[in-house]
Amino acid sequence: MLLTPAPRIPQRAWPLGYQGIGALLSCPRHTDQRQAANGCFVGLGSQKRQPLGASRRQFWIPGAQARRLSLLVAIQPAPLAPRCPQERPPLLSVPGVGKTHHYYTTSPPAGVKCHVVDLRSDTVTLPSPEMRQAMAQAEVGDDDYREDPTVNELQRVVADLLGMEEALFVPSATMANLIAVMCHCHRRGAQVLLGKEAHIHIFEHGGVAEVAGVHSEALQDLPDGTMDLDELEHKIQQAQGNRYLPRPALICLENTHCSTGGRVVPLQYLQKVRQLAQQYSLRIHIDGARVLNAAVALGVPPRQIAQHCDSISLCLSKGVGAPAGALLAGARGFITEAWRVRKLLGGGMRQAGVLAAAALVGLHNVEETLKRDHDNARCFAQGASALASPLCSINLAAVETNILLMRTLTPWLTPSTLCELMEAVSAEEVAATGQATSVRLFPWGKHCLRAVWHRDVSPHDTRLCGINERNVLNVTNEATRISVYRHENCRMLQRTHSNQPFNINQNG
Amino acid sequence: MLLTPAPRIPQRAWPLGYQGIGALLSCPRHTDQRQAANGCFVGLGSQKRQPLGASRRQFWIPGAQARRLSLLVAIQPAPLAPRCPQERPPLLSVPGVGKTHHYYTTSPPAGVKCHVVDLRSDTVTLPSPEMRQAMAQAEVGDDDYREDPTVNELQRVVADLLGMEEALFVPSATMANLIAVMCHCHRRGAQVLLGKEAHIHIFEHGGVAEVAGVHSEALQDLPDGTMDLDELEHKIQQAQGNRYLPRPALICLENTHCSTGGRVVPLQYLQKVRQLAQQYSLRIHIDGARVLNAAVALGVPPRQIAQHCDSISLCLSKGVGAPAGALLAGARGFITEAWRVRKLLGGGMRQAGVLAAAALVGLHNVEETLKRDHDNARCFAQGASALASPLCSINLAAVETNILLMRTLTPWLTPSTLCELMEAVSAEEVAATGQATSVRLFPWGKHCLRAVWHRDVSPHDTRLCGINERNVLNVTNEATRISVYRHENCRMLQRTHSNQPFNINQNG
Amino acid sequence: MLLTPAPRIPQRAWPLGYQGIGALLSCPRHTDQRQAANGCFVGLGSQKRQPLGASRRQFWIPGAQARRLSLLVAIQPAPLAPRCPQERPPLLSVPGVGKTHHYYTTSPPAGVKCHVVDLRSDTVTLPSPEMRQAMAQAEVGDDDYREDPTVNELQRVVADLLGMEEALFVPSATMANLIAVMCHCHRRGAQVLLGKEAHIHIFEHGGVAEVAGVHSEALQDLPDGTMDLDELEHKIQQAQGNRYLPRPALICLENTHCSTGGRVVPLQYLQKVRQLAQQYSLRIHIDGARVLNAAVALGVPPRQIAQHCDSISLCLSKGVGAPAGALLAGARGFITEAWRVRKLLGGGMRQAGVLAAAALVGLHNVEETLKRDHDNARCFAQGASALASPLCSINLAAVETNILLMRTLTPWLTPSTLCELMEAVSAEEVAATGQATSVRLFPWGKHCLRAVWHRDVSPHDTRLCGINERNVLNVTNEATRISVYRHENCRMLQRTHSNQPFNINQNG
Amino acid sequence: MLLTPAPRIPQRAWPLGYQGIGALLSCPRHTDQRQAANGCFVGLGSQKRQPLGASRRQFWIPGAQARRLSLLVAIQPAPLAPRCPQERPPLLSVPGVGKTHHYYTTSPPAGVKCHVVDLRSDTVTLPSPEMRQAMAQAEVGDDDYREDPTVNELQRVVADLLGMEEALFVPSATMANLIAVMCHCHRRGAQVLLGKEAHIHIFEHGGVAEVAGVHSEALQDLPDGTMDLDELEHKIQQAQGNRYLPRPALICLENTHCSTGGRVVPLQYLQKVRQLAQQYSLRIHIDGARVLNAAVALGVPPRQIAQHCDSISLCLSKGVGAPAGALLAGARGFITEAWRVRKLLGGGMRQAGVLAAAALVGLHNVEETLKRDHDNARCFAQGASALASPLCSINLAAVETNILLMRTLTPWLTPSTLCELMEAVSAEEVAATGQATSVRLFPWGKHCLRAVWHRDVSPHDTRLCGINERNVLNVTNEATRISVYRHENCRMLQRTHSNQPFNINQNG
Repeated sequence: MLLTPAPRIPQRAWPLGYQGIGALLSCPRHTDQRQAANGCFVGLGSQKRQPLGASRRQFWIPGAQARRLSLLVAIQPAPLAPRCPQERPPLLSVPGVGKTHHYYTTSPPAGVKCHVVDLRSDTVTLPSPEMRQAMAQAEVGDDDYREDPTVNELQRVVADLLGMEEALFVPSATMANLIAVMCHCHRRGAQVLLGKEAHIHIFEHGGVAEVAGVHSEALQDLPDGTMDLDELEHKIQQAQGNRYLPRPALICLENTHCSTGGRVVPLQYLQKVRQLAQQYSLRIHIDGARVLNAAVALGVPPRQIAQHCDSISLCLSKGVGAPAGALLAGARGFITEAWRVRKLLGGGMRQAGVLAAAALVGLHNVEETLKRDHDNARCFAQGASALASPLCSINLAAVETNILLMRTLTPWLTPSTLCELMEAVSAEEVAATGQATSVRLFPWGKHCLRAVWHRDVSPHDTRLCGINERNVLNVTNEATRISVYRHENCRMLQRTHSNQPFNINQNG
Repeated sequence: MLLTPAPRIPQRAWPLGYQGIGALLSCPRHTDQRQAANGCFVGLGSQKRQPLGASRRQFWIPGAQARRLSLLVAIQPAPLAPRCPQERPPLLSVPGVGKTHHYYTTSPPAGVKCHVVDLRSDTVTLPSPEMRQAMAQAEVGDDDYREDPTVNELQRVVADLLGMEEALFVPSATMANLIAVMCHCHRRGAQVLLGKEAHIHIFEHGGVAEVAGVHSEALQDLPDGTMDLDELEHKIQQAQGNRYLPRPALICLENTHCSTGGRVVPLQYLQKVRQLAQQYSLRIHIDGARVLNAAVALGVPPRQIAQHCDSISLCLSKGVGAPAGALLAGARGFITEAWRVRKLLGGGMRQAGVLAAAALVGLHNVEETLKRDHDNARCFAQGASALASPLCSINLAAVETNILLMRTLTPWLTPSTLCELMEAVSAEEVAATGQATSVRLFPWGKHCLRAVWHRDVSPHDTRLCGINERNVLNVTNEATRISVYRHENCRMLQRTHSNQPFNINQNG
Repeated sequence: MLLTPAPRIPQRAWPLGYQGIGALLSCPRHTDQRQAANGCFVGLGSQKRQPLGASRRQFWIPGAQARRLSLLVAIQPAPLAPRCPQERPPLLSVPGVGKTHHYYTTSPPAGVKCHVVDLRSDTVTLPSPEMRQAMAQAEVGDDDYREDPTVNELQRVVADLLGMEEALFVPSATMANLIAVMCHCHRRGAQVLLGKEAHIHIFEHGGVAEVAGVHSEALQDLPDGTMDLDELEHKIQQAQGNRYLPRPALICLENTHCSTGGRVVPLQYLQKVRQLAQQYSLRIHIDGARVLNAAVALGVPPRQIAQHCDSISLCLSKGVGAPAGALLAGARGFITEAWRVRKLLGGGMRQAGVLAAAALVGLHNVEETLKRDHDNARCFAQGASALASPLCSINLAAVETNILLMRTLTPWLTPSTLCELMEAVSAEEVAATGQATSVRLFPWGKHCLRAVWHRDVSPHDTRLCGINERNVLNVTNEATRISVYRHENCRMLQRTHSNQPFNINQNG
Repeated sequence: MLLTPAPRIPQRAWPLGYQGIGALLSCPRHTDQRQAANGCFVGLGSQKRQPLGASRRQFWIPGAQARRLSLLVAIQPAPLAPRCPQERPPLLSVPGVGKTHHYYTTSPPAGVKCHVVDLRSDTVTLPSPEMRQAMAQAEVGDDDYREDPTVNELQRVVADLLGMEEALFVPSATMANLIAVMCHCHRRGAQVLLGKEAHIHIFEHGGVAEVAGVHSEALQDLPDGTMDLDELEHKIQQAQGNRYLPRPALICLENTHCSTGGRVVPLQYLQKVRQLAQQYSLRIHIDGARVLNAAVALGVPPRQIAQHCDSISLCLSKGVGAPAGALLAGARGFITEAWRVRKLLGGGMRQAGVLAAAALVGLHNVEETLKRDHDNARCFAQGASALASPLCSINLAAVETNILLMRTLTPWLTPSTLCELMEAVSAEEVAATGQATSVRLFPWGKHCLRAVWHRDVSPHDTRLCGINERNVLNVTNEATRISVYRHENCRMLQRTHSNQPFNINQNG
């Protein structure tokens, strides 16, 4: 029954804003008002309720009706059931969504338990019972004196896994990367070469410059997560012996490559970069937050990847599923220096063995875990791709690991809106399936949203997500006929107008 | 029976070096050689065994006999039982002790279990069973999305405890301090005023300069952990409106003050500094790693201390006894910015609630714990002070919390040697007490060593430490007659000669 | 008679290296050896003279003959007359030219004076007699006490010229830009948005990161020296209120835009960027090293450009022709802070009035000077463009001010080689014109070289340059038939082979 | 006749503030009002004219009369003849003098030319006619391409003078020092050891931390400009192999040592520091802004000083008398790197030869110049010392070069006031000598003022300064009977009260 109400809404009506839960529709004056019997009026831009305009009407579709469209999301938290009692942080900003934006789900009918599948990131995993037990029983000591046997064990295990001389436990992959840059770029004026979309360049607050004082030359990332080798070499060559340019000292790669959707960087590419680096005496750091996903996807031991770099980071709170921590691995002298920098940054922890214990459990069966994650991602991708929705596309070939990027295809369906729709629970869904599934995704760029599979998402969860996706896209597709817009101020609206499929300003 | 062997050693004999376990004695040629029947000869400076010199003799007192003196410590690890299987880090360097120095204890006789009392720092506490259980059961979430309820709870609890608007969980007190400096000194050219012996200035790798780019004006610390207020004001005043000087922006205090032995900074002093800061529009950060010790010692709620500053750090892995972590508390806007800097430094952790859970347990009964620690410290200090040893003194009045500084009084008994003696277990001790107590202290400066009480040290442990201290000082005092020197190279030796109580170079 | 010798050289011959002055030709075995009667043989790669290979011959065309080709440049400085007795710095590196490369000109015949036209940069101008007199008579004082009346006058004059409240004299435009970034990006985590090819990003040693600790988001420059406004806005918008991204704080523009060949950034564009900046509370700095060129080209007062920014730099040692110095202009408070940063960087000078005096002279008639420079550049560009050479092209429309970029069109004629050819003086030229003109250009990128007009280049000089250009391109074009390559080692050579128009490896 | 008026002023009267030129006296109600016939009333603290208080009277002694006391200095610039038309910068702040303080001299009677002797610093020298001529005729080139022959010559000359491989011309000694620290402390975590009063630590805006990111360990300076070698060694030793402390990498010395009054650091001391540095693999930089003064005082070639360091700076705008610039000298590799850092900081200048030419002239006869400066300083010091004034003392033994520190001995005569008195011109002086000498000194610390001799001060000038000094001290000494205070607000005044020699608050 999801599709029923839509046809009854006149074609030129469009929602202008939202207030409370419900939808605001603007339609030509002669629109059948029965559509909006319970409505009230909301002003444009200011989002305050205002009297009706002259030539057009605005209808407020209150909660119950709007929810039937699975469309609308409220700006007032009161009547809602936020997923988590804590305030949500602002999301990655998306055009049309202001900085104070938070999203909330509609609550399922009383008595129906909402099942949440959180695909925002693989960082959201909760520690497993085995991890919790390991933490409770861990033998620990003061790691600042190198006396924590569990940390030492984890460092040994990961160094071995990555084929490096030593590894160092740090609080986060961000710190692992920052330390790596600081240790490799020890010489003043050292420059790092990396991809424009590299996590280090975009998401680590510019620590490379702010903390490490290192200038970045950011190259265009190719769709497979690599950089153009000729451009890379040209940039390096240019600076050779040149007194006027910064001195390239480090190449940072990322594997898997996050912003292209978990792409696995080819071993051959790594080898070529390494030859280049050797030829010009540069060093290579791999941001290997998800290097185990890459190894599993390639079917090679992680050390076969890590052999091509001088240092590599590994995140423990992503695919491995541990609560916190990361490792930085490299040669002995490098790790000695890394120890100092960890201390400098305040990353040294005392009885860190409690975290290390959980990580050791997570590493125990990480291969199967990641394989399953990859399978789930691919399974969902195939299903979603088969929908052939005009609203949203998936590049199936790019789904190599546990990350999926969906591209929105219409200007009015922003990634943020689609995220909200996927998270909302509709009465119809409950009625039809007896179950309320709320799927959390991440708005990722202007026309893109991201889903990440991880240990806490089962194949069954994945199937539920697929159903949810299909429902949302079908309903939303219907809804295109009423040109759904979300906006928060007039400027945004004016912009939107120009991209608009319908001639909405014409007086009906 | 500890004192028996010493008198038999001729007065002018003195140990020149060590090799294996034992003591090397040099004495006038006519010395009764029965003293060194099993000995072998070790060269000066090179520490290689060498034939005897012409006018003097050098005796090697091998392990069994040397141990009776409770004196000597081996440089060869093989025959020893190091306390912990992991390699020990180099200690704070002490004159006469080189950079590769490690100390080892002699092993107690077979069948006797060695009881270790670790007073090196209050960071060595192991998580209690309650903490372990709390960690295992903690409700957690992704703290990077602010969804970890246990972290949120801890932040709320500590903000409340310190009377601040908000608090932020960070991996270490070092990071808490670094973030504070970065957030307060947000303006280029900002200068921090702090004590020369402040932890931030000495033990945090100069992060204030290296990471934060902030210039330090370090003032002389007074013995009670304060700075001279007139000097402080003069430094600030000088720079007011002056175009040629750095701009004072932040005063860093430390409470309790570590390097003066855990001194509690008076509330009245804090108030005066605050008035000064307000007058000149500076901010105050308190390095409150041990602020709860200060509060307990003063008998006031911590917020009564924290009211005098703009931000304060609190370490969880010291008196609180949690495995890791610290908090930084301050005004809302300050913590918002601190969140960014934490991310920048890589201090953000995902399911950090597992650590927060342990900290909440630790905070539950922290007052009693710290009171007991302070009582233990004072109890030991009184006992040791009553010994009135000519080798070592304690300023009883300065023992206000859980830290005790002992001052060595002779040039030849270095803090490092005394630490080794306290850690070593002698056969005599076992014979006399049926128990082997090994006490670990920390060499702290040129003529100073440190003992720190914490949750894992009971009153009984404290009494055992007192007995150990008495024995060691008595035996060592006897041993002064053979002028014990430790050295590692000739230069060191030549220096020592000039301070020498005996005329050892005379041809006997 | 320049073209005569070329046809006599067999088609497949090609020079492999050089030693002394002359050309090394490699040609099929059956080549008419009369071509190389005075030759000797030089080895491949090693550049050592070696016996002839089996199937091919290598001919050394010694100086006198090679010079007839206007082709070759020596590696041995001895027989040459370097332009300046001091060692030349390595140039901007160019593929195929190693880091130790220096170029030298051939000497004109005895008795003929070589006339050098230096178009490498507008920084090479020498102070005029009027400037020298002004320097000698300048009233000066200690500028660190703000007591230098001539500096104060210059600062007043330039502030007025640029419509800013105040201006500050600094040693260089690089420092002016660095200070601007440090003052605008006063908040930690501030990010600068600028073009990938901006002088600040490429040629100022990454001071933005290394000294200022500011992270750069570098956008693709468009061919007219602007950036895409939508991309710019998207980058800014993304970070609005986002806790995970660096905070855009400053947009740096460059006008005229150096790397695109002195393009004048449109006023309308500046206005739009300013609106954007105001909307998102960012600031704008214009790297106006050559802003006077822009003003002259647009026919507007400089303040009409500067009104769109918060600060602007102006170089005195480019078009203005003063020996040294630059100015940074902005609001009073900004300049007060800039004063501090100048002091911090060591840019404060005492009796700087001697430099300011020269600048005031230079500014006096800068408008005519720059107009003439622009006319000269355009005149040369038109002449060169009319040659329609297959070797080298000029985008005439892009020549808006005093800079000209020439694009090389064949892989074997590197910018560096073309520079050398333009600088060399051929006997033929002297014979034909009675004059020896040596034109100095700058290799600028992989396929590009740069000519810059300035006060010391007259219209007559420009005409001579045009003749030189025509001759060089004609001769070189002829020489393509013998596929001229320059290289320095085997690797380079092997590369070159693959791009090679002729099948040179064929035996015979 | 200078002493006449003072006795006529009642003993308890005291000046409370100033407004216009003149003195404000507050005295008991019954004071003879003829003293203040032309006066007007000024309020306390607010410095606004206010009606008279009840029990006390305040008299305004207007300009003509006040000048007879040589006492007062105006806050209103209007009726004054400031030395220089430009605004004066705030001086080094002195207690009791607020941030907006500027001092002005009284104008000499019409028709009498005021002769100014500027002893504030040796940076105030104006270029000599020979320098001006040299600048006008200098052969110059683009120094960024290393083509400026005069800069090259200066660099060669100074490298030779200092016995270093190479030298680099930079805009200021501050930049020379900053570059040195950046090049020596190339390793992250490097620490610099230097004196607390070192110019680098105090007067260079903390660039060591802010720009170079280097942590400073500042040791107490001894009165002769050295540091305690044992303390220095202890600081270094402590950090050897210690994982917890910053890494000492550089020792900065200063010779002559500015803040102790131009003390010459002994060669033997330099030698010992060098041995220490070699032993622990540290480097030494000498801030040799006035190293030529040291060499002249010691009677040794400068290279005999520079041999004990790895790098040394030399200021050209101090004793050498050039308008601007400094040199940094060291080993070839060091200078290569210094070149890069100079570029980074924006210290590269194009035709810098115009400045270098003046410096070469200045260096030509620098030895005689400096000798004369030293003689002048000593001559003045002896005369002033012979006055045995109770207001002001000079440590004659400390006057080794061209700097003289005078210590004020009473709390009410601040260095700033004494500076003003020395600068003011009294009618009596003119009447007595027919000449008006205004002497400019520098307030230097809480109880200290500084005089610096330089090329523009002749022996005759020095004699005039001596007379001025004698007059001022005599008059001021008389004036103590009327307790001269300067203050700017009530708080200041209250402070002063407590240190007060006379019982001024008693109601008369």
